[in-house]
Amino acid sequence: MLGYPKSLGKLIDHLKRMPGIGQKTAQRLAFHILNLEPKGAQDLAQAILEARQKLIYCSVCFNLTEHDPCFICADPKRNQQTICVIEEPKDFITIEKIGEYQGVYHILGGSISPLEGRTPDDLKIKELVRRVTSSGIAEVILATNPNVEGEATALYIAKILKPLAVKVTRIARGIPVGGDLEFADEITMLRALEGRQEI
Amino acid sequence: MLGYPKSLGKLIDHLKRMPGIGQKTAQRLAFHILNLEPKGAQDLAQAILEARQKLIYCSVCFNLTEHDPCFICADPKRNQQTICVIEEPKDFITIEKIGEYQGVYHILGGSISPLEGRTPDDLKIKELVRRVTSSGIAEVILATNPNVEGEATALYIAKILKPLAVKVTRIARGIPVGGDLEFADEITMLRALEGRQEI
Repeated sequence: MLGYPKSLGKLIDHLKRMPGIGQKTAQRLAFHILNLEPKGAQDLAQAILEARQKLIYCSVCFNLTEHDPCFICADPKRNQQTICVIEEPKDFITIEKIGEYQGVYHILGGSISPLEGRTPDDLKIKELVRRVTSSGIAEVILATNPNVEGEATALYIAKILKPLAVKVTRIARGIPVGGDLEFADEITMLRALEGRQEI
Repeated sequence: MLGYPKSLGKLIDHLKRMPGIGQKTAQRLAFHILNLEPKGAQDLAQAILEARQKLIYCSVCFNLTEHDPCFICADPKRNQQTICVIEEPKDFITIEKIGEYQGVYHILGGSISPLEGRTPDDLKIKELVRRVTSSGIAEVILATNPNVEGEATALYIAKILKPLAVKVTRIARGIPVGGDLEFADEITMLRALEGRQEI
């Protein structure tokens, strides 16, 4: 990189490889790191190494964890008969935040996306089928994202699970709470109508 | 952080301390780091530590450098009689990129900003005065940012340098090349008019 000292250029280069971080942001972050006390920079580097070393995937649900099985799968108070299927570990946080869901999870590791070269074999679908067949699962909630890939993934999984005599549900799609009909797109509005319930 | 394994929560916390990085971006970056090969995470941590350890400030111009004086101040081909005064090391890149400027730099380390608690004493202004008085400087170009703080800083420095019989100039402010008069604000348009030159 033109004019920058080598170690600064290298740091910027590394930061730039992260998603959504361009040249300018990488520069800003690098200067921030340089302005940290030495202890602060060490802590940041340490946090990166530690996270990378300590975190593994739960062998049951494939969530990120430091101990296998993860604290959800190991929790006797959770309802182990209900599996919520999600795409990524971060979706788990969204659902846990509401504090209502008592079941367990299954993290697929993404969605089926031929464009990005992700086939069903790249996701933990076989592992989900194995879970459903081996233990007495009562319900599988498909909570993949309500976009093209997520819907296709949900349909694919529903089709595979159908012969296993397990209840398969899909999360509701509709107008977000606090949202406005005026700004809803046609498909969301259609789903909201389709998903209407008696009150 | 709710539900995240400890080392992941810690990494997200550290990333969130960086400027412009909120919870969501920190999460995305953390997951990116977890998906790196172990070598990639190590390289990133290493780059952070190395940059923090190796980079020092040039004792002449206060730019970031691995060797003191920096390669610009040590370059006999640069015109050491012209000093371009800038706020931050990153501004240096913007000017070096044009490949035309032959002089040297002086990095203030920011601008005068009472709101953010930065007084002239927090900037390398005394050091600039010392440079101007001790060596035969012909021209000082004030290239602080054309915003309120940058203009105030430029005026402040110009006033201090006036008794030293050195030529003090300010970079032109006007309509950016490729820009459109329609979208210029009043002050920029005023500066563009004031700065007009015969063709």
